[in-house]
Amino acid sequence: QHESDVTYDAGGKGQYRHFMLKEIHEQPIAIRNVLEGRLTTDSIASDTFGQGAEDILKDIEHVQIVACGTSYHAAMVARYWLESQANVSCNVEIASEFRYRKSFVHPNSLLVTISQSGETADTLAALRLSKELGYRASLTICNVGSSSMVRESDMAFLTRAGAEIGVASTKAFTTQLTGLLMLVLAIGKHRGMSADKQAEIVAAMKSLPAKIEEALALEEAIETLASDFANKDHSLFLGRGDQYPIAMEGALKLKEISYIHAEAYAAGELKHGPLALIDEDMPVIVVAPNNELLEKLKSNIEEVRARGGIMYVFADKNAHFGSDDSLHVLDVAHCDPLIAPIIYTVPLQLLSYYVAIIKGTDVDQPRNLAKSVTVE
Amino acid sequence: QHESDVTYDAGGKGQYRHFMLKEIHEQPIAIRNVLEGRLTTDSIASDTFGQGAEDILKDIEHVQIVACGTSYHAAMVARYWLESQANVSCNVEIASEFRYRKSFVHPNSLLVTISQSGETADTLAALRLSKELGYRASLTICNVGSSSMVRESDMAFLTRAGAEIGVASTKAFTTQLTGLLMLVLAIGKHRGMSADKQAEIVAAMKSLPAKIEEALALEEAIETLASDFANKDHSLFLGRGDQYPIAMEGALKLKEISYIHAEAYAAGELKHGPLALIDEDMPVIVVAPNNELLEKLKSNIEEVRARGGIMYVFADKNAHFGSDDSLHVLDVAHCDPLIAPIIYTVPLQLLSYYVAIIKGTDVDQPRNLAKSVTVE
Repeated sequence: QHESDVTYDAGGKGQYRHFMLKEIHEQPIAIRNVLEGRLTTDSIASDTFGQGAEDILKDIEHVQIVACGTSYHAAMVARYWLESQANVSCNVEIASEFRYRKSFVHPNSLLVTISQSGETADTLAALRLSKELGYRASLTICNVGSSSMVRESDMAFLTRAGAEIGVASTKAFTTQLTGLLMLVLAIGKHRGMSADKQAEIVAAMKSLPAKIEEALALEEAIETLASDFANKDHSLFLGRGDQYPIAMEGALKLKEISYIHAEAYAAGELKHGPLALIDEDMPVIVVAPNNELLEKLKSNIEEVRARGGIMYVFADKNAHFGSDDSLHVLDVAHCDPLIAPIIYTVPLQLLSYYVAIIKGTDVDQPRNLAKSVTVE
Repeated sequence: QHESDVTYDAGGKGQYRHFMLKEIHEQPIAIRNVLEGRLTTDSIASDTFGQGAEDILKDIEHVQIVACGTSYHAAMVARYWLESQANVSCNVEIASEFRYRKSFVHPNSLLVTISQSGETADTLAALRLSKELGYRASLTICNVGSSSMVRESDMAFLTRAGAEIGVASTKAFTTQLTGLLMLVLAIGKHRGMSADKQAEIVAAMKSLPAKIEEALALEEAIETLASDFANKDHSLFLGRGDQYPIAMEGALKLKEISYIHAEAYAAGELKHGPLALIDEDMPVIVVAPNNELLEKLKSNIEEVRARGGIMYVFADKNAHFGSDDSLHVLDVAHCDPLIAPIIYTVPLQLLSYYVAIIKGTDVDQPRNLAKSVTVE
């Protein structure tokens, strides 16, 4: 099956020092690839999730997403999107939890698995288990067309990210998110999403490659910032709403390749415990796009400042944060709030990469970790 | 309204050095208090959730729980219980997230808030917001009868934990869990829960005070263990299933009063990132009751051991773990797996307390934190 005309530099690292950096920079082309042929001028192409998919998707009343690691963070973002934009209920769960508990199955539920390799052991087991649980159908969002998950799912969406060699996932994640946004369109149009809203989402998706290029332009500033982190043992990542999973993903990246103990919190939970940890040795990263939660986030920032915390805020240019001794602002180009989770992922990837470079860790092959977790 | 005849030592700390330690030791009596008059020989008393509550609870098809901090961990445990035991779907969400996103409301949904004070700002705001969202009814699980949440909810369940002075919640949490187990009975009996199952849950609940006493008997061993932690900056807490939220609660306690950066993971997620952090300076706490997940957990333990991690395992006596240089086992008395989340909470409370004592922090009034978060 012919999927797309977009091609990647095959094989080596090309001009880049590590595969991870190459893969971060491949994201604009990867997103063009994942979009190709799948959108019309103002909606989603009808066969995007495969022939006959529309007959299934029109019946869907609930979406259950199951995934691990980075893919789980993509699932979490999708939950915010699906409930707010497509008017469909959505649950997400870690595969190793889902498969070992008795969960409730809603009528007309779609089981969605997300996995770069399509071979992640717990996620594959969850897919197989789901067949006995009464789900309406299964869909996998996957990067490998020949994988077990693609073969064993009723529907498959290929993320076309090309080979991802770095253990820490980058372009696989942002292409998963893009695919999930297409799922929002594909389900939403059967659940009352207006033509205007569909066109707005399509336009936002088409702006992704250029917006990611703009985010990549922060590279030099982030490389400078990274030196503040390299001698730290801890970090806290804060976000709200659909940026909370992005904070989680940013923290995971830093853990994976720089071995800094980074942890993410929904910013509103700060007062309920983690604020006790804050001091000048625990830098705080804040993901702050210019959406309706910005004012709330600013109040969270003031709490951290009052306790002596040093903050690094990735903020929309229009948010008008001012830098000072304890608050370092990195301006991110303005984008549609809907795609902000994808755009804000990019600077956090670069941050983890440059911190790891300073620390001298093995970026592409971090200790203790494998690229695909194919055993339980 | 007469609630119970159980009384607490009023006022001071009595024989205890801190309120927190007093409140940890008050848990057997607090549980007796929360149970009093609410159970029959083999089921739940019909007016436990208030007069007329049964007319509402019989209709409930979905439970949405909203809470913050420690109360959110209680909600997470309840989700496992409600779906597996009461055959009702359940979602849980952090209040500061719930109130600021458009979430899907299932038909005949019960909105449950959990809060010690009944005044937690985000949770109270979520309760008020829910009245416009089409929920069938609201229930609060709360420790303060005169609170806003009790006044503004359709139903209220008082946890009767008595005054909790220590900022780090202890008896409020275990009494919340006990109340949530009653909710499992109250909803489950309308959704096909067998008489035998109801009687089994009742028997398990009645065993709680004695089982907590047995857990408290670990105090001396835990005090000894605490000295291994006091010079560490990090810790990882692992659990699976309904013990995953208990791992989260254990990590939160250590954060709150000892300022050690403790983080919890569902044990199955280890391979997807956090394993990169493991070395001899990051002790790993494992909550391992003797249920069907034990063998899986043992394989996770081997992964940590292979990377040089030092583990402290709270395990059922019957699980037959053997201690060695890298694996320290603390035997917890056998209990019904259903109440294990409540029982295993107790040693983790004691651990955080004794680590804080060695570190010399202000146990009852940790830095940066307030007892009730009544502002956003």
